[in-house]
Amino acid sequence: MITLSSDFGSPYPAAMKGVMLQHSDARLVDVAHDFPRQDVRATAFWLREVLPYFPSAVHLVVVDPGVGTDRAALAIRAGEHALVGPDNGVLLPVARELADADRFDVFRVNYENADSATFHGRDVFAPAAARVHEAGVDALDELEGVVPTEEFEDLRFPDPTVRDRTATGELLVVDDFGNAITNVPGEFLDGVDEIDVNGLPAPVEPSYAHVAPGQRLVTVGSHGNVELAVNRGRGDEAFSVSVSEASGGSSDESAGIEVGDEIRLDTRPKR
Amino acid sequence: MITLSSDFGSPYPAAMKGVMLQHSDARLVDVAHDFPRQDVRATAFWLREVLPYFPSAVHLVVVDPGVGTDRAALAIRAGEHALVGPDNGVLLPVARELADADRFDVFRVNYENADSATFHGRDVFAPAAARVHEAGVDALDELEGVVPTEEFEDLRFPDPTVRDRTATGELLVVDDFGNAITNVPGEFLDGVDEIDVNGLPAPVEPSYAHVAPGQRLVTVGSHGNVELAVNRGRGDEAFSVSVSEASGGSSDESAGIEVGDEIRLDTRPKR
Amino acid sequence: MITLSSDFGSPYPAAMKGVMLQHSDARLVDVAHDFPRQDVRATAFWLREVLPYFPSAVHLVVVDPGVGTDRAALAIRAGEHALVGPDNGVLLPVARELADADRFDVFRVNYENADSATFHGRDVFAPAAARVHEAGVDALDELEGVVPTEEFEDLRFPDPTVRDRTATGELLVVDDFGNAITNVPGEFLDGVDEIDVNGLPAPVEPSYAHVAPGQRLVTVGSHGNVELAVNRGRGDEAFSVSVSEASGGSSDESAGIEVGDEIRLDTRPKR
Repeated sequence: MITLSSDFGSPYPAAMKGVMLQHSDARLVDVAHDFPRQDVRATAFWLREVLPYFPSAVHLVVVDPGVGTDRAALAIRAGEHALVGPDNGVLLPVARELADADRFDVFRVNYENADSATFHGRDVFAPAAARVHEAGVDALDELEGVVPTEEFEDLRFPDPTVRDRTATGELLVVDDFGNAITNVPGEFLDGVDEIDVNGLPAPVEPSYAHVAPGQRLVTVGSHGNVELAVNRGRGDEAFSVSVSEASGGSSDESAGIEVGDEIRLDTRPKR
Repeated sequence: MITLSSDFGSPYPAAMKGVMLQHSDARLVDVAHDFPRQDVRATAFWLREVLPYFPSAVHLVVVDPGVGTDRAALAIRAGEHALVGPDNGVLLPVARELADADRFDVFRVNYENADSATFHGRDVFAPAAARVHEAGVDALDELEGVVPTEEFEDLRFPDPTVRDRTATGELLVVDDFGNAITNVPGEFLDGVDEIDVNGLPAPVEPSYAHVAPGQRLVTVGSHGNVELAVNRGRGDEAFSVSVSEASGGSSDESAGIEVGDEIRLDTRPKR
Repeated sequence: MITLSSDFGSPYPAAMKGVMLQHSDARLVDVAHDFPRQDVRATAFWLREVLPYFPSAVHLVVVDPGVGTDRAALAIRAGEHALVGPDNGVLLPVARELADADRFDVFRVNYENADSATFHGRDVFAPAAARVHEAGVDALDELEGVVPTEEFEDLRFPDPTVRDRTATGELLVVDDFGNAITNVPGEFLDGVDEIDVNGLPAPVEPSYAHVAPGQRLVTVGSHGNVELAVNRGRGDEAFSVSVSEASGGSSDESAGIEVGDEIRLDTRPKR
């Protein structure tokens, strides 16, 4: 099984599929091809949330703002999984999640004379993923041109500061529903009825439909983190969250919280 | 074969796929993951139009505004098909369509301690669909925790009133092309050349390209119903149709026809 | 293997899949279902770029503004591939690319009494693609109702005029990243450092990240043609390119370059 993740939209991912199917009969499963454009950080977050639900697989990941420069191509073996993608950090958070006790192995995948300098997804990474799949995850290190390396771009999400009744964390991403996802662990909400989000009060609920349609709430999302939401509406709007330009979104002049900004949660005394 | 339908966008459906592939080698086929958000009614319409074209399959459906509340999880056996999804009516119109003479069986799928209260697609429905697939549609009722029920949320689309030269129906949905689909059966247009749609005249044509680009027309859509369209353009705009907020679309102050509104068709005398 | 290409959005392609799976166990691979709506020309370009990366397959293509009129249904055998779609030119550029020395065979696929006049993707082309797949590409001409023809709608992309330091070509399409793709072959940029695009100067670079974020550049895209781009931004905006209404995009009053317009590239003397 080979999964595919990219920010390519359409129809470029089909070219990657064609290339892989020339060399492999693997089942191909799309994870997403609409990850925020060239946003390594948001993609890394989503991969960490989604890929661990898969059985043993090769995961092709191409969010690659540095395509055509001298950035390396990587293959990472983590548990029963292999990850193939550019050396920009995007693979690291999920590698740690898939690996047993942080024991993952990183390899450089050598390439030269790629057919293009602008589409390594098709010309470098897809062929590499197919080769890894055909060899098997365990035999990854026996492949020609695949060499162990200790040097790679790392990426870690910040830990929140949790003190008693206050957590100071970061807004990580906004999902398609408009739910704004923080790095504060859901346990922080245990036994809490109401909370202030950067000063804005909101009830803490087990799920969206526990408040009236259009009302804001704070809940524990499916990733286990604190999430800002609206029942049948968009949490990002209700909590004045915007996706900053640096993260691939459109610019916004308003003084809201941007992805990457600090977010402060103060729990209120029990009602 | 397991089909997937949701309003999840991306990348949440991939987590459901991963979960199912842990338990099944079934072929997975996406129906759509961009159904109008939390719009049970529009999704129910589309499922009824699309799923009957499939051979025997398990159909996973997750449009679930009540996730995390006490709404039940259902499995329905209808003909050679099984449907798995929330108890909010979304499965019923297609169940009637797939069943022979309205003979379908409804079951509750018991669950407790789901991993999350906000993503039952991944934590409740996907595992249930995989279990049904592995057991086989016929053996659905032998699965542990699957119990017959007579109590479930029903959903029926209204019948239009057709009298001689006038049909009074409802606007059901607008498709991606902007075609506005009514509940009036296509036979109403038999032998008709021109029609008034809420007073607005339009020619009746066998297909879009029978009028000039940009011109409006009324035709019989692929679902067999009367449809308001524009050749190489959007019928919803030409006929002042808007998708109301309640249906998941954006609000619109204009005095147009909204999804769910009555629509009146008057046939004109033969030219 | 059957690939699917359309401008149907969602969920109509699922009905085509259901129909094919009633008659075939073929692997189904989506190329794209968001090709510019009813834009035969842009779709033809993308198919020519993407389908040649696939191993032997049947390619179902439904961008079909003439659905329901008397336009024919075609099947084309080109190399080890078969193409199935409407007779509007969309299949021809890729047929030439897949065929050995322009030797491809065109067949009419007869149909009558299709279930609908508005969705031949489901009622005519999907069944035809499944039949071709089951028979095998080589046996295409033995299928009932499949007859050789010399008459079909052709489509060719214009050749650019390349003279010494100046190339006069055409803007073909804009991709999802905003890269504006011309018909000028990449070789024109060999040894060139800087270029004027309709008078607007831009550096020539091997890939996007060779300029600072937000800066424009001219490069050779993955299709081998000259492409107008911006690092981590949109080339169409930086070079005032707009997709014209005729090509399915939104109208734009500005005096920019539209898809189909002439584009003039003047190379500058070496720095």
